[in-house]
Amino acid sequence: MMRQSQEWFLERSREMVNLRGVLALLSWDQETLMPPRGSSLRAQQSAMLAGLYHEKLTEPQWADVLEELEDVNSDPWISASVREMRRQHQRAVRIPESLVRELAETTSLGYHVWVDARRRSDFGLFVEPLEKIVRLKREEARCLEFSGSPYNALLDEYEPDMTTTELDALFSVLRPKLTDLVARIGDSVVEPDSSVLQGDFPRPEQEAFGRRILTAMGFDWEAGRLDVSAHPFCSGFSPMDVRITTRYAEESFASSLFGIVHEGGHALYEQGLGVDHFGLPAGDSISLGIHESQSRLWENQVARGRPFWDYWYPYLKETFPGRFDTVSLDDFMPAINQVTASLIRVEADEVTYGLHVILRYELEKSLLEGSLAVRDLDQVWKERMRDYLGVVPEQSSEGVLQDTHWSQGLIGYFPTYLLGNLYAAQMFQQAQRDLPDLEQLFGSGELRPLREWLREKVHVHGKIFSASELIHRVSGEPLDSSYFLTYLETKFGDLYAL
Amino acid sequence: MMRQSQEWFLERSREMVNLRGVLALLSWDQETLMPPRGSSLRAQQSAMLAGLYHEKLTEPQWADVLEELEDVNSDPWISASVREMRRQHQRAVRIPESLVRELAETTSLGYHVWVDARRRSDFGLFVEPLEKIVRLKREEARCLEFSGSPYNALLDEYEPDMTTTELDALFSVLRPKLTDLVARIGDSVVEPDSSVLQGDFPRPEQEAFGRRILTAMGFDWEAGRLDVSAHPFCSGFSPMDVRITTRYAEESFASSLFGIVHEGGHALYEQGLGVDHFGLPAGDSISLGIHESQSRLWENQVARGRPFWDYWYPYLKETFPGRFDTVSLDDFMPAINQVTASLIRVEADEVTYGLHVILRYELEKSLLEGSLAVRDLDQVWKERMRDYLGVVPEQSSEGVLQDTHWSQGLIGYFPTYLLGNLYAAQMFQQAQRDLPDLEQLFGSGELRPLREWLREKVHVHGKIFSASELIHRVSGEPLDSSYFLTYLETKFGDLYAL
Repeated sequence: MMRQSQEWFLERSREMVNLRGVLALLSWDQETLMPPRGSSLRAQQSAMLAGLYHEKLTEPQWADVLEELEDVNSDPWISASVREMRRQHQRAVRIPESLVRELAETTSLGYHVWVDARRRSDFGLFVEPLEKIVRLKREEARCLEFSGSPYNALLDEYEPDMTTTELDALFSVLRPKLTDLVARIGDSVVEPDSSVLQGDFPRPEQEAFGRRILTAMGFDWEAGRLDVSAHPFCSGFSPMDVRITTRYAEESFASSLFGIVHEGGHALYEQGLGVDHFGLPAGDSISLGIHESQSRLWENQVARGRPFWDYWYPYLKETFPGRFDTVSLDDFMPAINQVTASLIRVEADEVTYGLHVILRYELEKSLLEGSLAVRDLDQVWKERMRDYLGVVPEQSSEGVLQDTHWSQGLIGYFPTYLLGNLYAAQMFQQAQRDLPDLEQLFGSGELRPLREWLREKVHVHGKIFSASELIHRVSGEPLDSSYFLTYLETKFGDLYAL
Repeated sequence: MMRQSQEWFLERSREMVNLRGVLALLSWDQETLMPPRGSSLRAQQSAMLAGLYHEKLTEPQWADVLEELEDVNSDPWISASVREMRRQHQRAVRIPESLVRELAETTSLGYHVWVDARRRSDFGLFVEPLEKIVRLKREEARCLEFSGSPYNALLDEYEPDMTTTELDALFSVLRPKLTDLVARIGDSVVEPDSSVLQGDFPRPEQEAFGRRILTAMGFDWEAGRLDVSAHPFCSGFSPMDVRITTRYAEESFASSLFGIVHEGGHALYEQGLGVDHFGLPAGDSISLGIHESQSRLWENQVARGRPFWDYWYPYLKETFPGRFDTVSLDDFMPAINQVTASLIRVEADEVTYGLHVILRYELEKSLLEGSLAVRDLDQVWKERMRDYLGVVPEQSSEGVLQDTHWSQGLIGYFPTYLLGNLYAAQMFQQAQRDLPDLEQLFGSGELRPLREWLREKVHVHGKIFSASELIHRVSGEPLDSSYFLTYLETKFGDLYAL
């Protein structure tokens, strides 16, 4: 009976992983290659398979099988898998189908209204749909059950075990210190000249340089691809097939290059999950925050650092002949690390980025808890931007309407972006302790030792440890925002002569 | 009740079309882009969805629903769909699951043995697997029920309603006439110089030229793509997403170019099925033979003809500067139409191709009917090649082992290749009657009138008419091999001064 349950569990889990892989391929193809007229069929295909996935996840038999397997399993991969499936199954069965359908319809419509509202920069158009989305998400949280804030129920989807209590503690320390650092940088006499990054950078050379760096990072080309899409992303169908995308702008190489490194960091995590436990629910990444830590660490701690460019700058010069003849590495480093209090999150630098996230977190939590009305959102957004970053959007399209997340019902997602930065800084300081010659290695182009360290410390563990257990195991301490702050203070204190 | 049945029918049909589209994407991705290590997961994904498709196709409810809808429907698209689903459903339920599984295992193994046997050119290695495959296919035919030859049951999968009686009648007329024509061409004093087609043809220019011709043919780029794969194919996920592939050899532009036109012909059929009836079982192509007629017609009747090149030859010269300076169109035309009795089917020209197919048809029919033993196949192959084409393979790898079909259980498939040529010739003569200025149009680069004609006469009808009804409607006569023979006699009589 136990054996039967375990077989059922393993077979069903494997089917669901396969379905997720197919859904990911449908989506990847849609974003990269699909001819435009294919979209309506693709939507039908995806909806059908998503429905099938939901059916499999909510089968009544799960309850018995999970109960039977829960306490008796000595294999940590099986017990972590049982734990994970219980979480997923419970989330799925607790939300009634009528609510699932209403949310799907409302967000589908909401997305289209948001596109239109942003185009016209008219927040008023978006008020009613967003009110409905917030109401439905509150209902979803109620169905899911929670302790403390209803926000916790939503957060759990993206960052399991994280709570508003912990986020509030982390962010309330961070916010004033980030605001202060941004202000001090604003007052600095140092003014990086980022115009050296502008020019004519042919796409084939950009791509070749990006591929070269991915190879040096240890990206396995036998188990992955690099393609082009409007919005860069990483999609892991399995550790044996991980695909990243970028977009190229010929007038600037930087956004594509750092984008490739960022997605490459995600991809190393997916490839590093390994094949041994693939197909088990526990053989997957642990949380969005940990996932984001892998991309941020490679993008910021590594590829925006001096040791990295000590090695790669000559190759950059070689790739774009003549472009950097008069630009020394001492000029180049500030240019790729310029800090500017600006309106748009996705264009923000390492220092200001966190404030964009905290602002969104505070607002969406208040919306969900009922202490902020949707109709006041535009105004409050502007006030907070002034308080935190000292800039105020004139247009709602550059303010509250800039991100798509809320229109799609993604509430509880934003904090994972900043958590990624915190995890990354804390992991990286530990990597520097464990590998004392890390910077020398970077300086001689050796990036793989870091990949090996991350693989051993993070990637191979899948969902065996929760995110908080994982960061504790890696660094010997719970998550602490001071590592991120120290990293920023040191790096930007230096660059801006603070 | 009727209404309920019809709703069930439509919804289930739509789901199955979506599943087929997803399966086709999985396969397309595997052939074009998938990183090598992704293959084991892909096999699992495809097997799972194929199993799901089979489940849906064999649901017991079909029997009642089909019966209820059978006689009462006045909409020709619904009644053709009911007819088609009855055919598919019956085929599926008549084959027991144990046989499906045994066939899948045997052909999977058989394929690997065949690859090895071909590599070593050792037919002996392949005898036992092929014996088992033939035995299982005979069993399959028995389950499917048939009248006349058991071969009819297998043929029905690829070319519904076609029978060995009809094929024997067609091919027994063709075979001696083709053999005679090949012999006369062999004796001709005219010797085309195909070396003018050899040289250095950079891939980007080949691709650009191919795309230009596809555009002229009316290929809808908003609803399709052209990519690269080891074995060229066309895959239509829906009329809104039709993808073709080719492979480029830089030493010769011809195989890629004619390959693109060939697959383009398939693609125009898929795009031409139209969106109105997409999702209905009848909204699909009618048979492999009709499908092949569309590719052959564009490749041979159009793109290997003089009027086509009257327009395109200057552009070919422009695309590959200097390559054809000393080659007149009078030299070029024989070069792309050279006839050579050779060993390999996929490299055969228009005249010899049919003999390769007839040989395979005769042999596989005899195997299935039990009048030929697998162990004698290699020897009989060599004898027939000598009789039909006057050439004898020294190596089995260039003889009986050259094609993958049998190793994969594809028995009954080969005849559709030659049927395609027959349908194409008969359709094209009708197109010339209906559009008297067709050659002038080709000569001025106008290919779309032919696409419109094919769309109206063939593409839009989906499965409303059987293949034999369709050719009768198009040409006013049943399928008749004389059109193909006349076409060959005229064209090659001219080229070879017979």
